[in-house]
Amino acid sequence: MLKVTFLGTGGSLPTTNRNPSAIAIQRGGELILFDCGEGTQQQMMRAKTGMMRLTSIFVTHFHADHILGIPGLIQTMAFQGRKEPLVIYGPKKMKEFGSVMLKMGYYNLTFEIDFVELESGMEIDFGEYVVRAIKTDHGIPSIGFALIEKERPGRFNKTMALELGVPEGRMFGRLQRGEAVTMDGNIITPDQVLGPPRPGRKIVYSGDTRPCDGIRNISKGADLLVHDSSLADDMAEWAQESKHTTAGEAAKLALDAGVRKLVLTHISSRYSESTKSLEDCAKNIYSDAIIAEEFMSIEIPLRDE
Amino acid sequence: MLKVTFLGTGGSLPTTNRNPSAIAIQRGGELILFDCGEGTQQQMMRAKTGMMRLTSIFVTHFHADHILGIPGLIQTMAFQGRKEPLVIYGPKKMKEFGSVMLKMGYYNLTFEIDFVELESGMEIDFGEYVVRAIKTDHGIPSIGFALIEKERPGRFNKTMALELGVPEGRMFGRLQRGEAVTMDGNIITPDQVLGPPRPGRKIVYSGDTRPCDGIRNISKGADLLVHDSSLADDMAEWAQESKHTTAGEAAKLALDAGVRKLVLTHISSRYSESTKSLEDCAKNIYSDAIIAEEFMSIEIPLRDE
Repeated sequence: MLKVTFLGTGGSLPTTNRNPSAIAIQRGGELILFDCGEGTQQQMMRAKTGMMRLTSIFVTHFHADHILGIPGLIQTMAFQGRKEPLVIYGPKKMKEFGSVMLKMGYYNLTFEIDFVELESGMEIDFGEYVVRAIKTDHGIPSIGFALIEKERPGRFNKTMALELGVPEGRMFGRLQRGEAVTMDGNIITPDQVLGPPRPGRKIVYSGDTRPCDGIRNISKGADLLVHDSSLADDMAEWAQESKHTTAGEAAKLALDAGVRKLVLTHISSRYSESTKSLEDCAKNIYSDAIIAEEFMSIEIPLRDE
Repeated sequence: MLKVTFLGTGGSLPTTNRNPSAIAIQRGGELILFDCGEGTQQQMMRAKTGMMRLTSIFVTHFHADHILGIPGLIQTMAFQGRKEPLVIYGPKKMKEFGSVMLKMGYYNLTFEIDFVELESGMEIDFGEYVVRAIKTDHGIPSIGFALIEKERPGRFNKTMALELGVPEGRMFGRLQRGEAVTMDGNIITPDQVLGPPRPGRKIVYSGDTRPCDGIRNISKGADLLVHDSSLADDMAEWAQESKHTTAGEAAKLALDAGVRKLVLTHISSRYSESTKSLEDCAKNIYSDAIIAEEFMSIEIPLRDE
């Protein structure tokens, strides 16, 4: 399972209907967060994502609406007796954040927290996937993130294996895992019985940014791009000044990169009555663009080509 | 108008239905907050208390669930162009909180913030009322607050004034404001035409605490006591250890102090299904006890005796 749940889809000013930025990614038994705005812990409770399997929080930048949920979430997990360490990744200032965060109050911590600063291009390896940091353009140190699954071995061709004389059983497993086996002196190699490696899935999250090459390039063929779309195109000038992206600009970037699905988020409070103008700008260019809503959940299917 | 609105009634662990601690007090055109847990800014939007008339935040203590809404609220008010200064009062650690809070991220502030440490007994004078700090018992530096209106002048006895020969008009106003007037050589003093001074109203908020003398004493005759009632009486031992109050203990204290209204708050997440056990403990002793609910609003009538 690879599931993306939107916990906070609002802009810099939250509204009664949109929380500050936070996205939960559930993969297998693991949970990670991209950004963690104020109120994320309650949004996690409402979305039933759980908390204890949270391994990492990835912070795009240190504006208030992307970080203020972190201390409360940490205190709540400690109250619940968490023992497993937590790692919080982010751009420059991550370590300073870590050093001051717990001075704001009296905390009773039960687990260790590591604060790790990432530079563009750095990857964190989670075994079956990596999370890569990508420089973005928001006027302060900022990065976006790509969750990239590693290739899976190709499909196992059972008929071919039997034809080559491999008996059903343990040798099948060894070939599937990419090991060669020896049969009556003949060496059978995995490439004889496996199809081409199957690509993993890719999710890209821009955080707050102007449209930029880093996100465009990493998004090539992504299964899902979640992009800043704070404003409609008639606010293009303000988007430029405030270092955000318009819905039309995000759609154009998604089209250029050939992403399979586009979700627009970080919706300005000025669209709290209706997001139609955002939708119109985006769908004109990328017809399947989706405006993020609180608790929207998207499952990314395996690629089996 | 003197109105109390509950913005966060949960305990140390918020739930999907109860936010961390925050209470809005609206009086005339002014707004103050008692505590400001995570998510308070959105709760203020939902309760339509407004934000820009907020003059002061009073913090009872520096546990996460009472303070983490402060930085986000500040950033939101700055985005909205606030110019008026804000004062944040609290016990020891208030200044340290102030010095680290803004280092957690990049803030664009448009107004000044003062961080003021209060000791028990200190009063902040707002003209027609004061807010007094009262030492409480929570295991870390902690204070509760009493909002105490000053006495208002007694009722003006118009018949008596006319009998004394005072003509209707400006002299009435001077007498009502407590000034003497001279009529044909006779001095008429305010006490001749005014009833006894009318007492102001009093609201007490305990914050998190064991039952304590400070809160009991200041609550004598209070119009409203809002008290920690984290647990039911069968959890008395844990209440003692965690330095909270049971519903029965809070009710007993309210009865002893002769308060006119009692609201129980800081409700533990263990009562998220039902608060009946809390209610039973309290009503046994103080029959009109009310369990706080999110967005509950109480108007305190003027005392006209």
